[in-house]
Amino acid sequence: MKNVTFIGGGSFGTALGILLANKGHKVVIWDRNSSVVEDINNNRLNKRYLPFAKIPDGILATNKIEDAIEKGDYIILAVPSYAIRDICKLICSNVHRQQVIVSIAKGIEEQSKMRLSKVIKEELPLNPVVILSGPSHAEEVAKNLPTTVVVSSENMEYAFKVQDLFMTNTFRVYTNDDIIGVEIGGAVKNIIALACGICDGLGYGDNTKAALMTRGMSEIVRVGTLLGGRRETFYGLTGMGDLIVTCTSLHSRNRRAGILIGEGVLREEACKRIGMVVEGIKACEAFYELKDRLLVNMPITDMLYKVLFKNKEVKTAVKELMERDKKHEMH
Amino acid sequence: MKNVTFIGGGSFGTALGILLANKGHKVVIWDRNSSVVEDINNNRLNKRYLPFAKIPDGILATNKIEDAIEKGDYIILAVPSYAIRDICKLICSNVHRQQVIVSIAKGIEEQSKMRLSKVIKEELPLNPVVILSGPSHAEEVAKNLPTTVVVSSENMEYAFKVQDLFMTNTFRVYTNDDIIGVEIGGAVKNIIALACGICDGLGYGDNTKAALMTRGMSEIVRVGTLLGGRRETFYGLTGMGDLIVTCTSLHSRNRRAGILIGEGVLREEACKRIGMVVEGIKACEAFYELKDRLLVNMPITDMLYKVLFKNKEVKTAVKELMERDKKHEMH
Repeated sequence: MKNVTFIGGGSFGTALGILLANKGHKVVIWDRNSSVVEDINNNRLNKRYLPFAKIPDGILATNKIEDAIEKGDYIILAVPSYAIRDICKLICSNVHRQQVIVSIAKGIEEQSKMRLSKVIKEELPLNPVVILSGPSHAEEVAKNLPTTVVVSSENMEYAFKVQDLFMTNTFRVYTNDDIIGVEIGGAVKNIIALACGICDGLGYGDNTKAALMTRGMSEIVRVGTLLGGRRETFYGLTGMGDLIVTCTSLHSRNRRAGILIGEGVLREEACKRIGMVVEGIKACEAFYELKDRLLVNMPITDMLYKVLFKNKEVKTAVKELMERDKKHEMH
Repeated sequence: MKNVTFIGGGSFGTALGILLANKGHKVVIWDRNSSVVEDINNNRLNKRYLPFAKIPDGILATNKIEDAIEKGDYIILAVPSYAIRDICKLICSNVHRQQVIVSIAKGIEEQSKMRLSKVIKEELPLNPVVILSGPSHAEEVAKNLPTTVVVSSENMEYAFKVQDLFMTNTFRVYTNDDIIGVEIGGAVKNIIALACGICDGLGYGDNTKAALMTRGMSEIVRVGTLLGGRRETFYGLTGMGDLIVTCTSLHSRNRRAGILIGEGVLREEACKRIGMVVEGIKACEAFYELKDRLLVNMPITDMLYKVLFKNKEVKTAVKELMERDKKHEMH
């Protein structure tokens, strides 16, 4: 039995907390937001982020960060990618070096273009860091529907520990020692999912979306291998698997934001309506700059950036994207 | 302006016929079924296979095969995979060697395990043969929604001709000289789509399906490269792209058949309710035998075969499939 602390009471953090509590672990969820904390403690619900799920008694919520951190064997960072560094700064004076830090965020840091495990390492240099990623909508995890994820670390010994911590019959945890591939695939797939949502919003069909996803995979592999990730990782659960789930499910905020934008809603308004962070927008900004630095061709990212930030007409963008290719499939 | 003959008035054949007629080509559709022929000629509809689409005046339907074949510059074989050889035998005495044969069927021949282009070559050895494949639901092609497909041939000169024949602003035709990859990917993806439909029918979520599709892609690549196809073809439009469209769309008969089977309907009854050929069932039978001959591991095909033909309980099958893997993602 382990003590596990979640930093952030969002949908995926809460779903994983429920899973661990049901396995008999002692779970503490820290959230900044008092209404979330009170809802969990008093009503055994997290109406805001995971409305239908019953929170088991083994979970305690708090908004006192020192209390939350104190006893955790594992500290799960369950915040959006942009908040990772600040959260690390917030907890660094309370964290001790035996605590294993697990990040479930997907993205890269906007300013530095660093992978999140690197950001965490900069702020908490003495702690082991593990990344958990894969096709895993929180809503389905909370319903015990069969789900597969991958854990990775620069020190795989800790990835194995996190695998044991989370593994159940319906929540299968695999290890993969290609942490670069796992993190980059998870970040870029949100860009493609957003673009696919736009296709849906424009009323295009499954044929169009399948073409965009296929091409999106090439884009992920192209930039990802250049950054040092392995091709087979991108075609595995954390790349292709997660891309598929994000592009086809209405649970996905990236996809839903895309649908709104495809319907003509502007970026800021779409984000407001989604009400949670849309990681694909952040990732698009980051990779738009990165691709020029790396001299890598990312036509979907490029087009999406122009739609999101340069008021490019969305129909024109899709048209240009569909028509830009040469006539041999592989050239 | 070309004369194009479609052998078979099914949904995809009809949709492509409409596309060509709208480009100004002269299209003849041959169908065995008089009600389809009369519906096209008299009502300008194909209510049975493509109910909503208006058939343009440039299309003539007939059930006289000699008339249909006579003038065609291109003969499009738009029949299910199991009927390809018989259709070739039926037309061989009327076909002359200048006519380009285009197959839009996906599968391999059950008895011989031959790719369809090989079957056609055996029966019509003097004619050029081109394969057209990719993520292209007929319903969406008929609505002019942006669609991408690939053409391939052992003699690419003819693939370029077919590319020019079909290409429009919304129907993008790419070439790929890896005909083995194009044909094998198109056949195996139907097996995976059927399995994904079963997952849906069992009430599993997007997480499960994404995992199954990811794993399905490995299965396609494993058997496909062994048969001589190229890895990148399988990850392109005719493999991954077509897998995605088939697994996620309700247009797909393979997926719909799978859903019924997942809900507990038996194979024969599911086929009866779909009312058209379910290619994934045929492909599953063929590859079930082929995999043993090739000594290749195809766990999804294996499990699906047992469900379809050996009365294996479908829930147990999915459970075994989800739990069979070793703990490192890539091993």
